[in-house]
Amino acid sequence: MWDDLAPIGRHSGTGGYRRYAWTAEDAILREWFVAEAQARGLDVIADRTGNLWAWWGAPDADGPGVVVGSHLDSVPDGGAFDGPLGVVSAFAALDELRSRDLVPSRPLGVVAFADEEGARFGIACTGSRLLTGALGAERALALRDGNAITLAEAMAQAGQAPAGVGRDDEVLRRIAVFVELHIEQGRGLVDLGHPIAVGSAIWPHGRWRVELAGEANHAGTTQLADRRDPMLALAAVIQRARLAAVRHDALATCAKVRVEPNGVNAIPYRVTAWLDARGEDSARVRAVVADVTACAAESGGGVSEESWTERTAFDPQFSARLAVLLGDAPLLPTGAGHDAGVLAAAGIPAAMLFVRNPTGISHSPAEFADPEDCRAGVVALTKVLAELTG
Amino acid sequence: MWDDLAPIGRHSGTGGYRRYAWTAEDAILREWFVAEAQARGLDVIADRTGNLWAWWGAPDADGPGVVVGSHLDSVPDGGAFDGPLGVVSAFAALDELRSRDLVPSRPLGVVAFADEEGARFGIACTGSRLLTGALGAERALALRDGNAITLAEAMAQAGQAPAGVGRDDEVLRRIAVFVELHIEQGRGLVDLGHPIAVGSAIWPHGRWRVELAGEANHAGTTQLADRRDPMLALAAVIQRARLAAVRHDALATCAKVRVEPNGVNAIPYRVTAWLDARGEDSARVRAVVADVTACAAESGGGVSEESWTERTAFDPQFSARLAVLLGDAPLLPTGAGHDAGVLAAAGIPAAMLFVRNPTGISHSPAEFADPEDCRAGVVALTKVLAELTG
Repeated sequence: MWDDLAPIGRHSGTGGYRRYAWTAEDAILREWFVAEAQARGLDVIADRTGNLWAWWGAPDADGPGVVVGSHLDSVPDGGAFDGPLGVVSAFAALDELRSRDLVPSRPLGVVAFADEEGARFGIACTGSRLLTGALGAERALALRDGNAITLAEAMAQAGQAPAGVGRDDEVLRRIAVFVELHIEQGRGLVDLGHPIAVGSAIWPHGRWRVELAGEANHAGTTQLADRRDPMLALAAVIQRARLAAVRHDALATCAKVRVEPNGVNAIPYRVTAWLDARGEDSARVRAVVADVTACAAESGGGVSEESWTERTAFDPQFSARLAVLLGDAPLLPTGAGHDAGVLAAAGIPAAMLFVRNPTGISHSPAEFADPEDCRAGVVALTKVLAELTG
Repeated sequence: MWDDLAPIGRHSGTGGYRRYAWTAEDAILREWFVAEAQARGLDVIADRTGNLWAWWGAPDADGPGVVVGSHLDSVPDGGAFDGPLGVVSAFAALDELRSRDLVPSRPLGVVAFADEEGARFGIACTGSRLLTGALGAERALALRDGNAITLAEAMAQAGQAPAGVGRDDEVLRRIAVFVELHIEQGRGLVDLGHPIAVGSAIWPHGRWRVELAGEANHAGTTQLADRRDPMLALAAVIQRARLAAVRHDALATCAKVRVEPNGVNAIPYRVTAWLDARGEDSARVRAVVADVTACAAESGGGVSEESWTERTAFDPQFSARLAVLLGDAPLLPTGAGHDAGVLAAAGIPAAMLFVRNPTGISHSPAEFADPEDCRAGVVALTKVLAELTG
């Protein structure tokens, strides 16, 4: 499966993946999913939001089933594992179960959620959030990418009718439990010396847009005293975000910037920066955002929230049961959002398995997991499936 | 003439002009120039670099002539006057001369230089620098725009064969003297209470690229201590550039930035910033660049020069003669580069006329000149032409 996935959306210059929702690359990934399901005799249903479901069994007739999977899209110049590892491992675990001639007691589904990274339209977990209603359809469909194309237009261009988008109880009713396997995005398992962990919680996290206004002018003729240069405000915001993260023991990142007009000799009339902030509890994150908001206000700028997700604790009993099943696997929280967190927040029993990441690096072409640890992930996921469908 | 120019390349959102070299908008501007020339019975010659020349008279047969004009391209979201005012005023002055039934003693040319702003390929005055050989053809043709299209490819796509680019003595021999009228890009004339100034000198100026390396990683899971985030280095560079400008009494601007991959939750692996620095003498500018270079080096970054132009003093006797002719017009230096400066540096007698700018704002949709001052510019240019061809 990896050989087929490897070239899709890979940028020859950076070696990273550029797999954005509802693009040509995304379509090839979706075709790959359908082909893998069909090779196993499974039909694929795309729900109204575009999430892909391959069911072994009939959840509508036989009652809700156990779902495993993750997503196939990537951040800009992302790695090979974030997302695909969970989908590939899901198919591999299903193969392993079938090779044992086990007849599952309830249906078993493999899912690929749409637009998990939010790289194109700015909101993460769009597929699962629309499915559960955590994200409103009207707001989502009006989101625009860097070329001012709306999500609605992009979906329509990709052959996915946007009209049906919204909370979908028919789809949700089919899910008894969801388990998402994912590469770890830190070095917790390296430090603990384990290949596999069970997720305990997802930190509260959000995205904010920082708007900094300036006055367009000529860089070669405008005296310093006559300038209103928003790049200076940007510099202050970047530094304040880091200081605030240190001060409040949280994480804060300014990693995306838009400078207008972005000409060498044209003082910008506007700079927009995005703040990503996360922490163990929401008070810390709010304190970071308050600091950055105060900094932006010093130069007349403003901060607005683009998304916010409260702390999501996975069901402690369910997670503990999985940890015991996997030979006392450690429980780890994470600062990264996941579709499993979105389902858990919607009241669906959900759990996560993390596969060791030797460098901790993620969202980068250098993201890596040892093949042996990936196999350990499949073994663990198979154990979990056998237990939940046995 | 202004009515025809007004809509070309105007962005409906910002109200600014996006007239970049060798684009569809540029082609329309060039067609406009040809049409204006033909309406006056003048043929237009595009030289090998793509600069457009409309000659009244025959400089090859009758000896070199007096050339007036400027450029038609713009910075991103630029104003209506920077460039076009000089070309429109050139045609208007020519009309005025002809209406007096004067027979000029030598040929008279109107020029529109190609790619003056360098908005697309990063080097300003490309058309005039290639013409004089100040910029090498090989280096120029390999320049790439934001979509990785080379100047050679862009020229070829626009129907201008790139093969002939380079110093062109045949074209240069036709120019006895060049006078460029331009909107002032500061408030010197406002302070002096004059509508028109004669240029005395162009400050030394240049562009430098600042490369700041980081390590791509996940913004939600990478601890602060484990980060190599080049955005912090960017913030330091922006602030150091301003401090250095204050310290060395010069101008320094960071107005263009490229963040890679520029994702909200992906710590960048690379940030590139461009520094524009200018000052009354080159020592001040070099001191600014040294400060910024030291700042970039603190985080392992580097600075490389993209262009550099020494101080260009226009011929003092020629400028003084024009100032007297225009009723003791003031002499003003400028921090902005111009094609007239490139020709002057190549030993061609050149001068500039500046038209008052009531706000001093330039490179912005808010750039403006009073119609009465524009008319004063045409009157002045006509006087100059009558004097030089009388």
